[in-house]
Amino acid sequence: MARTRRPAPVETFPNPEPRREYVVEFSVPEYTSVCPKTSQPDFGTITVAYAPARLCLEMKSLKLYFHSYRDRGIYYEAAVNAILADLVASCRPRWMEVTGAFTPRGGMAATVTARYP
Amino acid sequence: MARTRRPAPVETFPNPEPRREYVVEFSVPEYTSVCPKTSQPDFGTITVAYAPARLCLEMKSLKLYFHSYRDRGIYYEAAVNAILADLVASCRPRWMEVTGAFTPRGGMAATVTARYP
Amino acid sequence: MARTRRPAPVETFPNPEPRREYVVEFSVPEYTSVCPKTSQPDFGTITVAYAPARLCLEMKSLKLYFHSYRDRGIYYEAAVNAILADLVASCRPRWMEVTGAFTPRGGMAATVTARYP
Amino acid sequence: MARTRRPAPVETFPNPEPRREYVVEFSVPEYTSVCPKTSQPDFGTITVAYAPARLCLEMKSLKLYFHSYRDRGIYYEAAVNAILADLVASCRPRWMEVTGAFTPRGGMAATVTARYP
Amino acid sequence: MARTRRPAPVETFPNPEPRREYVVEFSVPEYTSVCPKTSQPDFGTITVAYAPARLCLEMKSLKLYFHSYRDRGIYYEAAVNAILADLVASCRPRWMEVTGAFTPRGGMAATVTARYP
Amino acid sequence: MARTRRPAPVETFPNPEPRREYVVEFSVPEYTSVCPKTSQPDFGTITVAYAPARLCLEMKSLKLYFHSYRDRGIYYEAAVNAILADLVASCRPRWMEVTGAFTPRGGMAATVTARYP
Amino acid sequence: MARTRRPAPVETFPNPEPRREYVVEFSVPEYTSVCPKTSQPDFGTITVAYAPARLCLEMKSLKLYFHSYRDRGIYYEAAVNAILADLVASCRPRWMEVTGAFTPRGGMAATVTARYP
Amino acid sequence: MARTRRPAPVETFPNPEPRREYVVEFSVPEYTSVCPKTSQPDFGTITVAYAPARLCLEMKSLKLYFHSYRDRGIYYEAAVNAILADLVASCRPRWMEVTGAFTPRGGMAATVTARYP
Amino acid sequence: MARTRRPAPVETFPNPEPRREYVVEFSVPEYTSVCPKTSQPDFGTITVAYAPARLCLEMKSLKLYFHSYRDRGIYYEAAVNAILADLVASCRPRWMEVTGAFTPRGGMAATVTARYP
Amino acid sequence: MARTRRPAPVETFPNPEPRREYVVEFSVPEYTSVCPKTSQPDFGTITVAYAPARLCLEMKSLKLYFHSYRDRGIYYEAAVNAILADLVASCRPRWMEVTGAFTPRGGMAATVTARYP
Repeated sequence: MARTRRPAPVETFPNPEPRREYVVEFSVPEYTSVCPKTSQPDFGTITVAYAPARLCLEMKSLKLYFHSYRDRGIYYEAAVNAILADLVASCRPRWMEVTGAFTPRGGMAATVTARYP
Repeated sequence: MARTRRPAPVETFPNPEPRREYVVEFSVPEYTSVCPKTSQPDFGTITVAYAPARLCLEMKSLKLYFHSYRDRGIYYEAAVNAILADLVASCRPRWMEVTGAFTPRGGMAATVTARYP
Repeated sequence: MARTRRPAPVETFPNPEPRREYVVEFSVPEYTSVCPKTSQPDFGTITVAYAPARLCLEMKSLKLYFHSYRDRGIYYEAAVNAILADLVASCRPRWMEVTGAFTPRGGMAATVTARYP
Repeated sequence: MARTRRPAPVETFPNPEPRREYVVEFSVPEYTSVCPKTSQPDFGTITVAYAPARLCLEMKSLKLYFHSYRDRGIYYEAAVNAILADLVASCRPRWMEVTGAFTPRGGMAATVTARYP
Repeated sequence: MARTRRPAPVETFPNPEPRREYVVEFSVPEYTSVCPKTSQPDFGTITVAYAPARLCLEMKSLKLYFHSYRDRGIYYEAAVNAILADLVASCRPRWMEVTGAFTPRGGMAATVTARYP
Repeated sequence: MARTRRPAPVETFPNPEPRREYVVEFSVPEYTSVCPKTSQPDFGTITVAYAPARLCLEMKSLKLYFHSYRDRGIYYEAAVNAILADLVASCRPRWMEVTGAFTPRGGMAATVTARYP
Repeated sequence: MARTRRPAPVETFPNPEPRREYVVEFSVPEYTSVCPKTSQPDFGTITVAYAPARLCLEMKSLKLYFHSYRDRGIYYEAAVNAILADLVASCRPRWMEVTGAFTPRGGMAATVTARYP
Repeated sequence: MARTRRPAPVETFPNPEPRREYVVEFSVPEYTSVCPKTSQPDFGTITVAYAPARLCLEMKSLKLYFHSYRDRGIYYEAAVNAILADLVASCRPRWMEVTGAFTPRGGMAATVTARYP
Repeated sequence: MARTRRPAPVETFPNPEPRREYVVEFSVPEYTSVCPKTSQPDFGTITVAYAPARLCLEMKSLKLYFHSYRDRGIYYEAAVNAILADLVASCRPRWMEVTGAFTPRGGMAATVTARYP
Repeated sequence: MARTRRPAPVETFPNPEPRREYVVEFSVPEYTSVCPKTSQPDFGTITVAYAPARLCLEMKSLKLYFHSYRDRGIYYEAAVNAILADLVASCRPRWMEVTGAFTPRGGMAATVTARYP
């Protein structure tokens, strides 16, 4: 997971309850990127669930992070794994799971789910 | 969990069946508070599930407790953890789980879930 | 569980397949009782799931049993535990679970679930 | 499970993949029989899930088997257990589960689930 | 699983994150084939979930693979097992599960689920 | 509309508000009959809406009337028109509309709607 | 509409906007009464829509009015027409429509709709 | 509407109630054809509503008529208009409306509706 | 409509297409105010539909306008009529319709709809 | 409607049935543009319904036309009116209606509908 590129680092704030393991889930139905093969836009819903350790993801910064995919050419499998790597690097959670549920192309819908650790 | 502030202590009544472990769940779709950063109102549904020990939460008092958040500036993560701490302090349950499912802001919805013990 | 009151004993019939552990579930969306504090009617859906041992609950008698709550003043937590105790006493099941999902009062809905043994 | 009556034996065909444990589920929303007590028709949805061993249930024959209940007087609990026994006898599966979800009578709906082995 | 026929081999691409076990799911609601007995068309939704090892299934090639069933006479149970065998042979996943949920025939719907390994 | 057969005449009671034109609608999701061609059972939901004149349809008698179709061989178009004729003859309404929404056969569902006058 | 009985007169308050014709609709899913024939409880949802003239129906009083049906033996058609007559007498609206959608009995659901003037 | 090609003429039977104008609606969710440009399969739901005059469309023949589109290359707009023309020619109805609701392609779904006369 | 109070005047911008009559609809599910009688919070969804003439309502200003109800004691009927009057005064539309759908209180939900002109 | 800018003219093909007035509707749930004020992305579903005269809109070209909004800063009201003007200019329909249903911003959703002529 030693990635050097980090396109839109997400800001954090101190976890207000660091001693308790609890869960935060963000649902982002307005994700869009570009298909590297066809240059056509892709659309989907990204869900991020995590248990914060010392840091929490800041929502506005997270929103801007997802906007950074708008002009990027990236496949579904790569996008979900990149989001997981970037957000884990930002907040060092106890665990995190990222799901991308993409709208149908050619009558076929795809969902990708990756988990850390 | 040694909190000194306790904004609206929730009243209780004796558990009518203290020897059996059973579950009570309250769903509160009319929760609202204020965002500390933007001063804009936040909205969401709070769910409280617990197994009463010696005491049960009294519903009318619980309703007033949630009303006390109406003018309070508090982040999602802090609110869910504060509700859990306050209600655990009120009724000392076998276990309790609090979930806050907040309405979308900037195209992104957040859900926070915390559990005792 | 040594209760002396037994308001509407539910009739039973012999389990047609007593050697197999199987599950019967009744859903009763037309439950109504009276709030002991406000004297206002309460409404909800009662679900009874059980694995019959030697006896099965007879449906028509069970329906009349629920009608007996129509004029009774009883809190949610007490009602679900009383139904569980009465029905366990009637049919002595392998196990039973009773859930009461009550309609909102003051913007708050409550669900109570109890299980035997 | 030594039943002598076998009202509509269901035909089978050889399992095309006998070495793999996989699952087949049939949903039959058009089940109807007769209540032995009131002679009124009963309606429900029968679901059959099973893992075939050497034999698979043939769909057309299974459909005719369910039609044989149309004029039969039988209680819910007995019907689900009889269907399970008949279909297990027909195809000798690794396992099978039969569920009957019956439409409400007197404001009360019943579901019965039985499993082999 | 030593199959010689392989009607429409599905192309693959290198897994962008081979060290992490993650899940990809495709949903194909536009599957159609022909009933070998009646020569009538069958319809259903095929779902493929798998954890890629070294290779990922290429979506466009997968779509064409499903088109190859359009004129093929094949039973439900055989189709789901054949799809599983073909796709496992194509990408050698950590695991894969294929489900076919077929539309009702004669008032009865069938679902078949098979899993590798 | 001079029909001589009248298989199950439906009983009526005096309209409690004959001077006002109002609407009564019955929904019967448990209709079943037999296909005259294939002898296979048909299923559907019958809806009867009418404005009573001097007479109202009695519900229990109406239920038994629909049971009389259980063993009758009749096509969809004929059934809906026969129900309309029979019920109009029974209660002489200001107007009546009968709809039959039948479950799919061969992947095709049919709905028939007829109106008097 | 010259009714002498008036079981639970509904209180009113002055319409805050009497010059504009606007619409108020109340939905009451917790209606229950008793079947005069079988003495069994009936359940349903009553909807009242009206355009206030000089007076508006007071909600709390309206709620108590519906509670007065809890122990009354009354048929569906009579109940809807009685509610319409009572509420028209209470607030003298420009127009009013009352609908009662009752839960199924014997597999058959009924809806009654009456309108003033 | 003077079409000479008539690919699969639909059989009819005499309308059992020719003096009454009533409506028959067929819903066909299993329509499929081929895109003339890309040779890829198209999928959709065809709805046919009509008021029979002297003749009714026979359901089994209608089903086979829709199967004849399975291998035909035809655009959405042309298909709906062709179906309308063919079915009007078959049964000469009082009126007919045909709707085709096609599944999304490239993130865009199309619906075409044509009516006779 | 000569109102002197105007609590939160809503800003406008010039209609970009003033010659065409078209419709704009805003849905505000996060409306809350205070019941003047009980001092308890009320909740509901406000819908505003209008045809702009020379001016369009500015969304951010409209949002703040609805926030101004958060601490105001006002009945349902008065609130909907006040919103209509304020927004008509702000943008002078061709027509406007305001609907308030309020959450249940005491098992009863209310909806109020007013229209200009 | 004398617009000089025409960002992505949509291609057409001859209407296959020009003598009949029929309706084509496109639903585009993947519309996105940029808010001119905040530079944040907007999302929504555009629906286009029209009755073709001599020309039909070509779907692939229409899809690319909507992609041209991806980087454009435009308000909701202006976007819907611009789409209507562009598509009317492309195919000169008998009539056309364009609706944009945009996702919530600040807890408020907007829908804009414009019609030609």
